[in-house]
Amino acid sequence: MMMVARLFIALLLVAPAVARADGLRGTGNLGLVVERATGSVLIVDTSARKALGRVEGLGDLSHASAVFSPDQRYAYVFGRDGGLTKVDLLTVSIAKRIVQAGNSIGGAISDDGELIAVSNYEPGGVRVFDAQTLDAIASIPAVGADGKASKALGLVDLPGRRFVFALYDAGEIWVADLSAPEAPAIAKLTGVGKLPYDGNVTPDGRHYLAGLFGEDGVVHVDTWREPFKAERILNGYGRGEQPLPVYKMPHLEGWGATGDKLLLPAVGHHELIAVDLRSFAEVGRVATHGQPVFAVARPDGRHVWVNFAHPLNDTVEIVDTETMKVIHTLTPGPAVLHMEFTPRGNEVWVSVRDADRIDIYDAATFAKKAEIPAQKPSGIFFTARATRIGQ
Amino acid sequence: MMMVARLFIALLLVAPAVARADGLRGTGNLGLVVERATGSVLIVDTSARKALGRVEGLGDLSHASAVFSPDQRYAYVFGRDGGLTKVDLLTVSIAKRIVQAGNSIGGAISDDGELIAVSNYEPGGVRVFDAQTLDAIASIPAVGADGKASKALGLVDLPGRRFVFALYDAGEIWVADLSAPEAPAIAKLTGVGKLPYDGNVTPDGRHYLAGLFGEDGVVHVDTWREPFKAERILNGYGRGEQPLPVYKMPHLEGWGATGDKLLLPAVGHHELIAVDLRSFAEVGRVATHGQPVFAVARPDGRHVWVNFAHPLNDTVEIVDTETMKVIHTLTPGPAVLHMEFTPRGNEVWVSVRDADRIDIYDAATFAKKAEIPAQKPSGIFFTARATRIGQ
Repeated sequence: MMMVARLFIALLLVAPAVARADGLRGTGNLGLVVERATGSVLIVDTSARKALGRVEGLGDLSHASAVFSPDQRYAYVFGRDGGLTKVDLLTVSIAKRIVQAGNSIGGAISDDGELIAVSNYEPGGVRVFDAQTLDAIASIPAVGADGKASKALGLVDLPGRRFVFALYDAGEIWVADLSAPEAPAIAKLTGVGKLPYDGNVTPDGRHYLAGLFGEDGVVHVDTWREPFKAERILNGYGRGEQPLPVYKMPHLEGWGATGDKLLLPAVGHHELIAVDLRSFAEVGRVATHGQPVFAVARPDGRHVWVNFAHPLNDTVEIVDTETMKVIHTLTPGPAVLHMEFTPRGNEVWVSVRDADRIDIYDAATFAKKAEIPAQKPSGIFFTARATRIGQ
Repeated sequence: MMMVARLFIALLLVAPAVARADGLRGTGNLGLVVERATGSVLIVDTSARKALGRVEGLGDLSHASAVFSPDQRYAYVFGRDGGLTKVDLLTVSIAKRIVQAGNSIGGAISDDGELIAVSNYEPGGVRVFDAQTLDAIASIPAVGADGKASKALGLVDLPGRRFVFALYDAGEIWVADLSAPEAPAIAKLTGVGKLPYDGNVTPDGRHYLAGLFGEDGVVHVDTWREPFKAERILNGYGRGEQPLPVYKMPHLEGWGATGDKLLLPAVGHHELIAVDLRSFAEVGRVATHGQPVFAVARPDGRHVWVNFAHPLNDTVEIVDTETMKVIHTLTPGPAVLHMEFTPRGNEVWVSVRDADRIDIYDAATFAKKAEIPAQKPSGIFFTARATRIGQ
């Protein structure tokens, strides 16, 4: 019996908090919460509305984000310090960790789940890794038409083992086809505008938009039309001529894609801007409580939840996308940093950093259903992202 | 050591083919293939492109379909004989099985994953079960305005713990709110048209469409607008006045929702009909090889894959949704019954019933990547459906 007991203990150590009675569980309802100050992540169960455990040692997690393997067992966490950490959600542990650059910002996983791409500030460019082993596969130096190395950002996957990203310094947008990863085929759009600071693709993987930091406007690339063309939309959108100070550049990640329009956070202004998804023209504005940071659509697109920049960041507003009005206001607490919906939109998780807490709301009634303690939580990422283009 | 060895064998029996070295695996890349003739299902791994095992004893699986639990561990398989089987994908076994009616057609899972609803032909109506235990929770007899019990079908989930379905005999559409499942709140639309034979909701969960068997046309309900209204669209669509024999009524399940339009299989004719998602007017037709059965959009909406009714059912056509032209034709083999895309659309699985085979294609190049033997395969269902409204 001794031996059996010892083996049992060993098994328990391998599969701790997460395991059910039979040691097995599904991964479709798992997620990860970034704890930026402590370089740790919480693994969470969205059905139980509980944390399953904490993984430490992920380095600098300011502006960290995550993508998921197709089996929804592993998260790839992109840290600010160039760290790329593969986290095993089932064993609540680090499966593998590398530091692949000096300073990086975000990453993506190819549509087949085989390649991890990371966009770097220092030394710039994009590096590509094997999703299983994290072995280096390709490096794409982002040297623009000006001959200088550029920061890369706004990196997302496209169908067909492709990635798209922007070159901050050079003002370019590149589409890289990694069908043959040792020899990436790159289409380069030059002179798209000054200092693109973030980019994202519509949920269908078709339209890439990049916001500009150096001038007013947004750049649009229709990735279904080759040769690619960068077209300027929303002239006047941006920080260039804003009368208000900009407390935080808004994120294009998690934007409010809803049926036939997008709701984008305005820069500097207390507004969302609605963009028609056929014409890419502005079709309306919604006045908001503060400078919006994230405008996240409920998966059915009927509501968009909005959080705000400092000092108005204790509040969340809920916008009805039909009437384009704020229909409800919540004040979860100090420093609401991120919101993530369950995949079919029945609940939403909200990180309240300075309350060290995640709040879980019913997305239909807006009633709070649960709270989870967390250390200075920021980004929340659920495994259902593994099923999405542009995750 | 004896004891240890014995325990090891016991563990292997609990978690057979599916388990990795550590006995754990994710469930995001699992799926299920219905083997209709033998009342069995194959559990498959979409990353490995392999079958993991077979589960038998599911009864009559003609017209069977499946939905998944939010953790993507369990499939709920709806058989034609009223059987409702909860299949554990990780242990490749039946977790629970009940026979809940004499003759049934399809089912759905509530957005919170807690309720399973089944639409029945005999005795008619909808029955609702606890997703954990399969204990009966509610029964909704489908007695129409005419006072008679009706067959129920076209059942799908809506956000907010709701289900919508059609009454075949009575010609009605009902929206049932099961927020309080012991007392369902039901909105009834009467006189919507003769003999609705199938129904489905757009991917955003907003627009419910039901096809009519007894007359030409389709019924549309915008579930964002209350009180609900049933509006007729596509007059002239349907079997009522068709010059061609109808070999098989097409499915609305898995339809080609692509950006701003739907591609519906025409009834009797060798065509797809494109419907604008703003106006719900017809905006074009695509000539096809035969009478289309399923028109399934690749997840990015750029292509729609179409299979056909007997006797032209050895063929699959691929339609470009921008040009509205057939751009490629495949002939997988005799009796192509169903197609399912991987969640981000890089591959598609095709069941070729009379070749006893599943074919797996690269969705970008149309190259065949693998074959899997299966016994008279029909429906293919991947766990990513757990993340979708109207799954």
